[in-house]
Amino acid sequence: MPTWQSYLDQHQDQYLKELLDFLRIPSMSALPEHSTDVQHAAKWVVQRLQQAGLEAVQILPHTGPPVVYGQWLHAPDRPTVLIYGHFDTQPADPLALWSHPPFEPTVQDGRVYARGASDDKGNMLVPILAVEAMLKSTGSLPVNLKVLFEGEEEVGSPHLAACIAAHQQLLACDLALSADGGQAGEDQPSLGIGLRGMCALQIDVSGANSDLHSGLYGGVLQNPITALVHILDSMRKADGSIAVAGFYDDVEQLSAADRALLSAVPFDAASYMATLGVPALVGEPGYTPLERLWARPTLEINGIWGGFQGEGIKTVIPNHAHAKLSFRLVANQDPDHIIQAVTDHIHAHTPPGINVQLQPELARGRPYLMPADHWGNQSAAKVLHRIYGKQPLYTRSGGSIPACTILHSALGVYTVGFAFGLDDEQFHAPNEFFRLSSFRRGQVAYCELLQELAGRSA
Amino acid sequence: MPTWQSYLDQHQDQYLKELLDFLRIPSMSALPEHSTDVQHAAKWVVQRLQQAGLEAVQILPHTGPPVVYGQWLHAPDRPTVLIYGHFDTQPADPLALWSHPPFEPTVQDGRVYARGASDDKGNMLVPILAVEAMLKSTGSLPVNLKVLFEGEEEVGSPHLAACIAAHQQLLACDLALSADGGQAGEDQPSLGIGLRGMCALQIDVSGANSDLHSGLYGGVLQNPITALVHILDSMRKADGSIAVAGFYDDVEQLSAADRALLSAVPFDAASYMATLGVPALVGEPGYTPLERLWARPTLEINGIWGGFQGEGIKTVIPNHAHAKLSFRLVANQDPDHIIQAVTDHIHAHTPPGINVQLQPELARGRPYLMPADHWGNQSAAKVLHRIYGKQPLYTRSGGSIPACTILHSALGVYTVGFAFGLDDEQFHAPNEFFRLSSFRRGQVAYCELLQELAGRSA
Repeated sequence: MPTWQSYLDQHQDQYLKELLDFLRIPSMSALPEHSTDVQHAAKWVVQRLQQAGLEAVQILPHTGPPVVYGQWLHAPDRPTVLIYGHFDTQPADPLALWSHPPFEPTVQDGRVYARGASDDKGNMLVPILAVEAMLKSTGSLPVNLKVLFEGEEEVGSPHLAACIAAHQQLLACDLALSADGGQAGEDQPSLGIGLRGMCALQIDVSGANSDLHSGLYGGVLQNPITALVHILDSMRKADGSIAVAGFYDDVEQLSAADRALLSAVPFDAASYMATLGVPALVGEPGYTPLERLWARPTLEINGIWGGFQGEGIKTVIPNHAHAKLSFRLVANQDPDHIIQAVTDHIHAHTPPGINVQLQPELARGRPYLMPADHWGNQSAAKVLHRIYGKQPLYTRSGGSIPACTILHSALGVYTVGFAFGLDDEQFHAPNEFFRLSSFRRGQVAYCELLQELAGRSA
Repeated sequence: MPTWQSYLDQHQDQYLKELLDFLRIPSMSALPEHSTDVQHAAKWVVQRLQQAGLEAVQILPHTGPPVVYGQWLHAPDRPTVLIYGHFDTQPADPLALWSHPPFEPTVQDGRVYARGASDDKGNMLVPILAVEAMLKSTGSLPVNLKVLFEGEEEVGSPHLAACIAAHQQLLACDLALSADGGQAGEDQPSLGIGLRGMCALQIDVSGANSDLHSGLYGGVLQNPITALVHILDSMRKADGSIAVAGFYDDVEQLSAADRALLSAVPFDAASYMATLGVPALVGEPGYTPLERLWARPTLEINGIWGGFQGEGIKTVIPNHAHAKLSFRLVANQDPDHIIQAVTDHIHAHTPPGINVQLQPELARGRPYLMPADHWGNQSAAKVLHRIYGKQPLYTRSGGSIPACTILHSALGVYTVGFAFGLDDEQFHAPNEFFRLSSFRRGQVAYCELLQELAGRSA
């Protein structure tokens, strides 16, 4: 009788080919013109889950981009585990900076380069292949399994909460595993216990009813770009902290224990700066870099535009200007409260002579924090220790996975981060890649974790 | 024997057709991909000057876009007058806001709509047609005439000073007339005595070596857009004045007489605001709107860009951001000094963690101020009074015509503004137009002015 180990061994060539197929689908959820590609990726996942031997595979009926579900529920008295991931990707621009086209995956030096390779197609395919290997080799799984793969994570999962609420009974489980995320290093496992939340909005500033000659009209008109940069600069104090009234009110301050766990995680500022090519680190005073990245909220301007962007000079007072802002939030900030505080700040700092309109994004992720010693983490730590030969670090991430918070509030379960991305893999940037060694190691780790969880009761 | 009046009457249909031909050439000097169109426009002007009967018509040899010259020098003991204009245009974007394509001129309700119709193709064609009418009807001109038409006014004439210096003897004259500019109103003539100067630069801010995920990296990195808006906002004080050290040092303060001339010019703030669709006028305190527009320097941000500009969210820390700034200057500010002061300010206000590079534009225009009672103005005032039935106002313009300053310093002559654009004609904006009534009136006015100048000695 074959084992899942030998089954995995025999199918690696096929699995790589399938990963490349999956990566060819340009399922960029932020771009409306790619919504059919997101649908296409969902259908690809449905077919792949059926092939793996999962049952009741379906696109869940709800309003929003497709959410794919599958199950295998033939392990009575064993816990029920739900695996989460996403098949949508970030946009690929700026295209000029890619060495290979982002949706023509290229294997080179043990890595596969493509948009979505690490975040999250490579990572989400891993548990599907692990489950297939167990089902095809032994005919069963050690636990009851449900899977939930969504197509709008990269825009903040605006429809996921309603979808999960509508299918609460179908999705009921004892523990969730997230196949979105990563490890601390190739030789250093980690378990993520915290994620930042997020909210975002666009500011649109409009002035006169047309662009105007800056010589003939300059001196009496409020320039929309001038107003916009004033508003944006007013949101930050000279020390780098955020000047929006009430912004920090609900932030859970770091305890000594929290700071000790964080300080156990190595952070080499010099090599971090060298890797990114920046001359200095900046940020909120009174916190270490990892505390700023993982346990403090931020404001970033993700984009800005207005007026003439071509070569040379166009002496114009443009009639509109725009910026996109996003905020990373930590426990216990509420995205709705933050949007309100920011809105109030912007209105209070809007200069005369122009009009400002705000477009808050529907996508809002609450911050997430889970006990380090939760039973799910204990099982995962055992498996990671066995595979890596080291105890995991307990880390947080500055990023947001809205699903973790939604699963906690809708289903009452915590999510163990169990994924194999690494920090240098350029997710959200040009030349994203995933290590084939992680792809393989993840499959083994998932098989072992499901076995480990069989002995746990929720 | 025909008169110039009857000659003009007989040729209006042809002249309009020729204006439309001229306007079809997309001679946008700011856009490198249109440099052959600027060449094409120069050749069109050469041919048109030859047809009008001018002599020695040529593209002057020099480094830079074409400068067209022509002459008629058969009026001994009469003054020599040089007529200036430009055949390049502003860019046409945003195209979506044009009712007709910008380079497919459309005649409607006595107006011709096209990019460059008013600024400056319509206006510069006027004196060519006037000269033709005099030469073809009477065989001579009342003065010695030179013409100089350039192809880079809309980018600030960066090569014109060197070209004029190289051809100083050829261009020597007693007075210049500018066919670029306008009148105070359809029923109100004016003589411009002041123009603002200009200088400009681009700021390029760069951060990490690639775009980065704002969740994973946000909190320790200086965001190039954040740095850029901080730098830009630091350049303006809360009261609207400019915060760059030394910026106002060389400004010639307005005398009581200057203020009296300016206050004679009507300015209806309410209708100005209504026309432009702005809720308030702003600007430097202590000055009237016309003083701010004509006699005070300004800073405008003409364009800004960086990061994600598409629909929806892309949670990125972009790795670069850019802005284009321009400054309007008044007597006796020096563009080189201003560029230096701004450069110093930017370096002093650059936050850590990013790199800033500045690209000062070569194009720099000195401000221009001419005595209201100069003999050239006296002649022009006589003609305008005859045609409009009113004395001209003595105005200034907030715009820049580098040629006026260059002609003054290189040839020692003042330039009388003698052109027929009107303020509502949307130059530098979508749906630019020129009134056919101004096109016709200008031809008559130029014939009369050349006759009037015949009696003047330089």
